[in-house]
Amino acid sequence: MPHDDRSLRTIEEAWRLIAAEVRPLATESVPLLRAHGDVLAESIVAAMDLPPFDRAMMDGYAVHAADVAAAPCELHIAGDAPAGAVVEQAVQPGACLRINTGAPMPPGTDAVVPVEWTAPGSAADHVRVERSITVGRHVARRGENRRCGQVVLAAGTRLHAAQIAAAATTNVETVTVHRRPRVAIVSTGDEVVELGSALRPGQIIDSNGPMLVALTREAGGRIFTDDDSQPRGWTHVRDEAELLREALIRALRADVVIAVGGMSKGTLDLVPDAFERLGARWVFHGVAMRPGKPVAYGVGPDGQHIFGLPGNPVSSLVCFVLFVQMVIDGLQGLPATPPERILATAAEPFLPVRDPRPAYVPARLDFRSPGRQTIRPVPWRGSGDPIGAGRANALAHQPKGDVEIPVGTLLEAIPLAGAFDPVGDDRTPTG
Amino acid sequence: MPHDDRSLRTIEEAWRLIAAEVRPLATESVPLLRAHGDVLAESIVAAMDLPPFDRAMMDGYAVHAADVAAAPCELHIAGDAPAGAVVEQAVQPGACLRINTGAPMPPGTDAVVPVEWTAPGSAADHVRVERSITVGRHVARRGENRRCGQVVLAAGTRLHAAQIAAAATTNVETVTVHRRPRVAIVSTGDEVVELGSALRPGQIIDSNGPMLVALTREAGGRIFTDDDSQPRGWTHVRDEAELLREALIRALRADVVIAVGGMSKGTLDLVPDAFERLGARWVFHGVAMRPGKPVAYGVGPDGQHIFGLPGNPVSSLVCFVLFVQMVIDGLQGLPATPPERILATAAEPFLPVRDPRPAYVPARLDFRSPGRQTIRPVPWRGSGDPIGAGRANALAHQPKGDVEIPVGTLLEAIPLAGAFDPVGDDRTPTG
Repeated sequence: MPHDDRSLRTIEEAWRLIAAEVRPLATESVPLLRAHGDVLAESIVAAMDLPPFDRAMMDGYAVHAADVAAAPCELHIAGDAPAGAVVEQAVQPGACLRINTGAPMPPGTDAVVPVEWTAPGSAADHVRVERSITVGRHVARRGENRRCGQVVLAAGTRLHAAQIAAAATTNVETVTVHRRPRVAIVSTGDEVVELGSALRPGQIIDSNGPMLVALTREAGGRIFTDDDSQPRGWTHVRDEAELLREALIRALRADVVIAVGGMSKGTLDLVPDAFERLGARWVFHGVAMRPGKPVAYGVGPDGQHIFGLPGNPVSSLVCFVLFVQMVIDGLQGLPATPPERILATAAEPFLPVRDPRPAYVPARLDFRSPGRQTIRPVPWRGSGDPIGAGRANALAHQPKGDVEIPVGTLLEAIPLAGAFDPVGDDRTPTG
Repeated sequence: MPHDDRSLRTIEEAWRLIAAEVRPLATESVPLLRAHGDVLAESIVAAMDLPPFDRAMMDGYAVHAADVAAAPCELHIAGDAPAGAVVEQAVQPGACLRINTGAPMPPGTDAVVPVEWTAPGSAADHVRVERSITVGRHVARRGENRRCGQVVLAAGTRLHAAQIAAAATTNVETVTVHRRPRVAIVSTGDEVVELGSALRPGQIIDSNGPMLVALTREAGGRIFTDDDSQPRGWTHVRDEAELLREALIRALRADVVIAVGGMSKGTLDLVPDAFERLGARWVFHGVAMRPGKPVAYGVGPDGQHIFGLPGNPVSSLVCFVLFVQMVIDGLQGLPATPPERILATAAEPFLPVRDPRPAYVPARLDFRSPGRQTIRPVPWRGSGDPIGAGRANALAHQPKGDVEIPVGTLLEAIPLAGAFDPVGDDRTPTG
């Protein structure tokens, strides 16, 4: 498939083309406590008022607010209202009950005076209230968070910790979520050998396989492998058509297939042809960007999402973040939209990358400067330098790669996993 | 332990006190492919030049740059230089070899002319080169990423996907990392019952247990449980001194113990006393903030890091993010520093929270506004409302809780997990 510069898609076109193909995967029912990171396929609706009763929000004394309007004053302590128990008998005017945070409000009381606003009374069963209080103060009203029947979490919400708390409070044990996409990773290239191999001249270690497994997990995808001989999570094949065909047939049992390497113009670039012979249709092949220009996206014979990523590790990193991630998002039930970008001020110049295409380059976001976040390039030698990229926590966007970005320019950056890791005082955590 | 307002720590004091107590855990050796998310305890040093040979970075023709100085011109194609193989014989002046990305440069050649810059020659074994090229163009030089003996990733680096690629390229199979902290979670409160229970009057579901398990995992901690009857990852105990004591004794086998609930002033607040009787020393108890004022941090009898978090779920969320997270970071080998904060413009006013203390309130970051990121409060009813907080993807800082923050103010926000999830066009994914 040719891809001279005239036939290249823009990044925005590629995003639109991908978005048009992605639909969420089927739903499944899972225990809430195993749904961390899943995306709701059905809204969670409150099956009761939340909170289910008027609830004290402070430790102190449940009172009639009218009784302490002229505070300081004294009240008779008629007993206790502990959390987890229900007081049946109404509290008489002029009296109060000791109450704990979380306890139901005793009948007749309408506010909680915190312990801090009180002092010992003139007798052991009296308390001195120092301040007056408004009706309802330090009380969470039954149903004030949600009424029975109201939506607690909408379909499409991903369940991170805060959302798990919201769901748990409604007492739902099981939630309906979208299945996580299974992602198969096939790395190619005769020069590429597996981690731990004795390197012969001309060989390099496969860094794409381990990196794509980690990227897939960071994106919420599941690693697909049907082959116990490949426990590492990816398959490497040599540049031979039959081996590649067999590997792709197995990989097409997944929801997403990422083939890396072999997508450029050389004679050994077998991947596009192998996919086509298996019934795949390419949606685009080639995007006007740097690195990552040879990236290809298509649809497999059974609707699988297939990617051909260029083999240089920084190219495949950039292509994953720009394009694969949004497919994994969309299959999980999130919107299939381009990655969120954060604005940061260039703290150092970004040098031209010798190409007018837009560039996404490894960079380091820093949140320590007072009043702004900054970004600076990391030293790297181009798409074949994963070590330079290993210092990055973001990809910075250079709209025109052949134009220097001066200090002070506001740049868009895509945060990578770890963008919010603490970095210490020297700001150069990775050497 | 008293904590009237005069004895409260500031948030900054609390951060300093915690940082002074935290040291990284012991190191262990793990396979690189299982070290995703771990923090390096020892730097990774290149054991060879990287790349290990002069390497073609494009598909095309390996040439003597001097031969094409007067391009357009024709060169004789003397053969192939495939990736993964080594050409021994020097290429003669006026000749070139077909070369693939990743292949070693054949002896005598010094640049790669990309296929795109060529056309068929006058004979089948000739190629027409349209453009001249500089020496070294489209070639990655041996050792240009790192020389043998240079640091590839420094101690203290967390291994996300990009760092795993950097490490893999050096062919290290095993890395030395800090052990992940084991975190034990004990929730208390007679009114609190486990998810799935039939609620009796006065009872609510424990949302803290599931939330703290998820927060711990998001922070990189491991859930500690020694008790197969508690497969969910936390223990709930009623407000009885002996039960609490037994639960804390078990929990103190972990590196971090989080007790939630029972840290305020009520008569049933047994947690501080129970920890003290087991030999713990409190470092602080009470921070001038909202929510979360009763938070306590201390050191257990064997150096464990112990926390007492207030029982309202939004309070415990805020305290985890502000204080527990930095302990987990530090134990893993990252700097034990306060959470990174991102600057965003208030898109809606943040109303006063009726208290002069600094507040951290649930909020929603949005990266879609051209030219800036924005933040707005989410509707919530206070620290007892996890449902409101379930709409948040960040905590926004109100430096003085009793002062309204007008639209347009630049606010600090701590992103929560999912801050960069795509949110769709309506921007209210959890409504």
